[in-house]
Amino acid sequence: MPSDLIPGVDPPIQLSLELPVKKFAGNFSSRGMTMPKIDLAKVPVHTGSRYPAPYDVPCRDRHRLRLGDGGGLTQFGVNLLTLKPGVWSSQRHWHHLEDEFVYILSGEVVLITDAGEEVMKAGDCAGFPAGERNGHHLVNRSNADATLLEVGSRIRGEFGVYPDIDMLFDARGFTRKDRTPY
Amino acid sequence: MPSDLIPGVDPPIQLSLELPVKKFAGNFSSRGMTMPKIDLAKVPVHTGSRYPAPYDVPCRDRHRLRLGDGGGLTQFGVNLLTLKPGVWSSQRHWHHLEDEFVYILSGEVVLITDAGEEVMKAGDCAGFPAGERNGHHLVNRSNADATLLEVGSRIRGEFGVYPDIDMLFDARGFTRKDRTPY
Repeated sequence: MPSDLIPGVDPPIQLSLELPVKKFAGNFSSRGMTMPKIDLAKVPVHTGSRYPAPYDVPCRDRHRLRLGDGGGLTQFGVNLLTLKPGVWSSQRHWHHLEDEFVYILSGEVVLITDAGEEVMKAGDCAGFPAGERNGHHLVNRSNADATLLEVGSRIRGEFGVYPDIDMLFDARGFTRKDRTPY
Repeated sequence: MPSDLIPGVDPPIQLSLELPVKKFAGNFSSRGMTMPKIDLAKVPVHTGSRYPAPYDVPCRDRHRLRLGDGGGLTQFGVNLLTLKPGVWSSQRHWHHLEDEFVYILSGEVVLITDAGEEVMKAGDCAGFPAGERNGHHLVNRSNADATLLEVGSRIRGEFGVYPDIDMLFDARGFTRKDRTPY
């Protein structure tokens, strides 16, 4: 019996989370086993912004490699985000249900929150706990590209607020604060 | 009315996840708002291993900065892991319920799974989807320190398996595969 089939462990267990159905997106070796190292050339890419105009403008030159998706993960997202000079990571926002985390890999960005501004360089990181009503975003005010990892949990029913503009988001997309669509 | 108090958004919502009660561990500025940039000097540190002997030996010289905890996050952990030459990230293991992700920041490690070995350098990453029975760990076979970020979701009831040794883990700690304690 393979050592990882364990009597008393293998029966299905009670799972209290409503997790999305997982579709594995990784690679398989010739032995039929997963090769977990992620091939960056095959990772889903997202460029630009789906915000309604004109809120998309400052975010048009952002580029995300969806690393976690590329590794077949579903419970949280991990993106490698590249911000060109002048570009914003997002409109300033906060999440009701989902924790968020950023780690700067290269370059320099400015973290803007209700508490003020903080410069962040390689090795700096920040956490944004779910439900904390402190809108945040990162702006690249430098003359060079900045790269960072962003991590966010994925929780059904998530929604959030953009404090600086007339916009909310939920699973259906973006609306005005009176819930009317754009 | 502050722009982030939104009629129709603010009433409590139905939350299907059993998340732990959050205790904020971040800093507050003089204005009373969170400064989300994490002060690395105040982040919880964990060094060594809690594995029962002799399984702790290869992991004694590992050093983790618990960045996510330092940022007040509860839904997933983010650790900055430093592995000295010869040191393992963990015994080879897999998780039943929790997704896991690693991103190499500096140095070189070898990722070992049932599929074989893969060298990982700065910028390489790997995903380990929950329930995929492919034990994995990272070993630093180089002559220099290696640093990496490791991300893992936190799900109540989590348990997992160490395929190479007579050990399981769950919320109570480590046991033999027949569930007897060490």
